[in-house]
Amino acid sequence: MQISEYFPVYQKLTAEQQAQVDHFATLRSIQKGTVVHDASMGCTGFVLVRSGQLRTYMLSDEGREVTLYRLFDRDCCLFSASCMFSSLQVDVTMEAEKDSEIWILPASIYQQLMNESLAVANFTNELMATRMSDVMWLIEQIMWKSFDKRLAGFLLEESSIDGSEVIQMTHEKIANHLGTAREVVTRMLRYFQSEGMVKLTRGTIELTDIPALTALTNS
Amino acid sequence: MQISEYFPVYQKLTAEQQAQVDHFATLRSIQKGTVVHDASMGCTGFVLVRSGQLRTYMLSDEGREVTLYRLFDRDCCLFSASCMFSSLQVDVTMEAEKDSEIWILPASIYQQLMNESLAVANFTNELMATRMSDVMWLIEQIMWKSFDKRLAGFLLEESSIDGSEVIQMTHEKIANHLGTAREVVTRMLRYFQSEGMVKLTRGTIELTDIPALTALTNS
Repeated sequence: MQISEYFPVYQKLTAEQQAQVDHFATLRSIQKGTVVHDASMGCTGFVLVRSGQLRTYMLSDEGREVTLYRLFDRDCCLFSASCMFSSLQVDVTMEAEKDSEIWILPASIYQQLMNESLAVANFTNELMATRMSDVMWLIEQIMWKSFDKRLAGFLLEESSIDGSEVIQMTHEKIANHLGTAREVVTRMLRYFQSEGMVKLTRGTIELTDIPALTALTNS
Repeated sequence: MQISEYFPVYQKLTAEQQAQVDHFATLRSIQKGTVVHDASMGCTGFVLVRSGQLRTYMLSDEGREVTLYRLFDRDCCLFSASCMFSSLQVDVTMEAEKDSEIWILPASIYQQLMNESLAVANFTNELMATRMSDVMWLIEQIMWKSFDKRLAGFLLEESSIDGSEVIQMTHEKIANHLGTAREVVTRMLRYFQSEGMVKLTRGTIELTDIPALTALTNS
């Protein structure tokens, strides 16, 4: 499968532009845990996921994290090419959560396409709108949803992504996703366990009452 | 002053497109407190501020608010035209904080321009990037900045917007900006007063030690 089958506006490019994408996009195989982009790297480029799973998060001065959104097969990310926009002052980190294959198109090439092609410019607008919706959803969660509901929702999402009722993830890692401290996660998980909603063992969390977790997150 | 002098990409439009903007943009004079846009209104259109001050905020199911960003002279807002983007699922409310004059360009016209003109499409990208930066800054504040620092920063910003060391605003209103409860604001303002940083009277907050407030917000 070539980039032509993954890049959503490829068919709307001129032959010359298509040749540029083919030539300049590099396919990288990255292992779980690899940091693909962070603030220190400057402008990594436009990222398009062929397969795998990546996490985009913000990092505080004190090293705390909060997940902004995940990328799966065929998802694109612009924040790793934020230098293309003079108004975008955003530092995010992107890390592979599973072994992944991604295409990277240099920011200068993507920017040139954006300046030449209406299709690319408006595709970029839609992509920006998607990320904006993700981030606004996150604000709602942080501002107005109590932590038990957020944690229940996160466990259900993880279970759904992995297609398994057993989640293999440390409490520390969950805390990083949700932007809180490990102790807070551990305390709430123990409460969930006492209510029969999960079963905890070292390194795993088994969801034992999905209807109850679903009711909690939607309450 | 006509819209041609305010709309940043006007000069890059064709004569026909310029005529459309001139024809379809309506200038509205709105009083302080007027809600220009909210979720119930659907797609209000692209907003361009001629003069005044507006606030864009999110509203929770329980009626709590948090300010996303402010609009001043020459600022534009896309969220009041979110129907233009299939991926933008965002409900915001826009309210005049001062008597204001705004142009509204119907979403259908703006969308047509965006689909015809590279300049408009890429201007839209930059505008989206600006709002994204505002919103990401807000997440950092909410997640990682203690409330005393956020409140000090808010008072300094208000003082700077109004060019006055006396802020005329209720504690309720401040709570709505910052997404918290009135009691929390009142308690912290009393603490600031005890430290000599502000002087409280009914309906006003006088900043009496700006260097101390600045040091606090930057600490």
